[in-house]
Amino acid sequence: MYIHAVSHYLPTQVVGNEHFTNLNGLSNEWIIERTGIEQRRKAAPDENTNSMAVDVVRLLQDKVDLSGVDLIVGATYTPHDTIVTLAHVVQNHLAIPEIPVVSISSACSSLLNAIEIVEGYFAMNKATRALVVVSEHNTAYNNEQDTISGHLWGDGAAALMITKTRQSESDLYIRYLLTGGAAHTGKATMAVVLKPLEKGVIMPAGRDVFINACLYMPKATQQVLYKCGMTLADVDYVLPHQANLRISRNVMQTLGLPEEKLISNIERLGNTGCAGCAIAMSERWETFKKGERIIVTVFGGGYSYGAMLVEV
Amino acid sequence: MYIHAVSHYLPTQVVGNEHFTNLNGLSNEWIIERTGIEQRRKAAPDENTNSMAVDVVRLLQDKVDLSGVDLIVGATYTPHDTIVTLAHVVQNHLAIPEIPVVSISSACSSLLNAIEIVEGYFAMNKATRALVVVSEHNTAYNNEQDTISGHLWGDGAAALMITKTRQSESDLYIRYLLTGGAAHTGKATMAVVLKPLEKGVIMPAGRDVFINACLYMPKATQQVLYKCGMTLADVDYVLPHQANLRISRNVMQTLGLPEEKLISNIERLGNTGCAGCAIAMSERWETFKKGERIIVTVFGGGYSYGAMLVEV
Repeated sequence: MYIHAVSHYLPTQVVGNEHFTNLNGLSNEWIIERTGIEQRRKAAPDENTNSMAVDVVRLLQDKVDLSGVDLIVGATYTPHDTIVTLAHVVQNHLAIPEIPVVSISSACSSLLNAIEIVEGYFAMNKATRALVVVSEHNTAYNNEQDTISGHLWGDGAAALMITKTRQSESDLYIRYLLTGGAAHTGKATMAVVLKPLEKGVIMPAGRDVFINACLYMPKATQQVLYKCGMTLADVDYVLPHQANLRISRNVMQTLGLPEEKLISNIERLGNTGCAGCAIAMSERWETFKKGERIIVTVFGGGYSYGAMLVEV
Repeated sequence: MYIHAVSHYLPTQVVGNEHFTNLNGLSNEWIIERTGIEQRRKAAPDENTNSMAVDVVRLLQDKVDLSGVDLIVGATYTPHDTIVTLAHVVQNHLAIPEIPVVSISSACSSLLNAIEIVEGYFAMNKATRALVVVSEHNTAYNNEQDTISGHLWGDGAAALMITKTRQSESDLYIRYLLTGGAAHTGKATMAVVLKPLEKGVIMPAGRDVFINACLYMPKATQQVLYKCGMTLADVDYVLPHQANLRISRNVMQTLGLPEEKLISNIERLGNTGCAGCAIAMSERWETFKKGERIIVTVFGGGYSYGAMLVEV
């Protein structure tokens, strides 16, 4: 299974930390020290999860031909429409009839759940060219006044074309991928929630999220490396879920890897949910060199986690 | 792949058509003539999609041992929490650590999408005993005043244990299953929508939904039978998505099958979304006889559709 191409879409409005200083008194220095975040993007009033999904697929179409797509898996926890999901609007945009179309959520981990679902369709021989679209409109559900988590969230989307067989030399080979739920641990089922009818993503137990993110991302990374018969010495880059720069640094420390191997965009984009890692992959795509290996590892509310080893 | 056991949960409050007569003037006769619906269930104030998911899994545990479950797929378009999804609360309830856990939506079609995702995990050898939980809290998102669709919706949940190998003589063998998106047709992307931030499921193009439901359920049924080398003569029962009794009867007419072969619960339960067919399967489970074949066929907003042939 290969990642043949990837694109990302970012809304144009940049929201700096001073916005929160004016709103609720959090200083730029405090936000950077605690989260690493300097800026985040905010969707325009006429944008939403579904429109960003279509926009990012248009960008992917500038790179590759999507006419042969035979499966669409969308992912978001910030839905614009839970019936006409982002996967449906993408199918509508591509006008490809009668292929499997589904949208999912395992919170911030969904990128890897989506790719694992694609892996399943490939294994069943029910698909060979899949489109995975991750899109988050966090600011639609965020309470900016919230001094605990209001400053964390950003908007953005990414699209990946995933193929069963290699299409080109620059494809990323997915060597192994695993996902898991960790809803049995800690304060998993109340630590970070988004109840649409109560309108808002909140984080009542941020410390529990922090602890478990720092535990599960290194653990899943080691599990994937073990499955591949590799060690941390074989890893060129680690791309963790973009939740908090302190979490990312903690993951690197636990793994015993230097910060040069960390891929991060949270400084510029904030926490873009399940889109974060895919956006970073798209941003860095051109810089990866033949033979390099990248661990993508995620953690999300619920809790959920996963890891994937890809090789250029 | 086998359905080893199934359970259903219905909230206790029964809402008759007279409720809508009092509210917006729709008569009992009119509602029955147009939809077949006489009653529907409404979740209590302390119930929600997640609580019903756990309740229905408890009922399944009365029938079978769930300790060996190695995959949980939840489905809903009426989420209580898009981060801590119904699949997560089920994992938390079962206290089974570190298995894949994901929740999905393809609107009213999600039951078959969820089972197809399970099929993929079985094909990858990443799971052998899966739990599929479908739960809808329509009344949380419904505007009862709406004379177009306010009277259609009901609440309920179902849980299915699906195993890679046969567990007992009474298991339903899943002979073939397919799903598809039809977001490219008609008014698919605006005909029935649920935008959480605009709070409410609405059906701006009910006639287009009706037409496409009547088209796609027979079509998917024929596709599945063709794949199985069977014909309609081999089918003992048809269990269509429980959207509207007129749609179900139209599907039977198109297929040329008598109404005795139709399985229906919409009269008592209204449209319970992606849970409807699974609830009906649970209600009828004890009556199925060895050798009988049942077509389950679904249609949902987006649009989405699917069909599955099961054999006792």
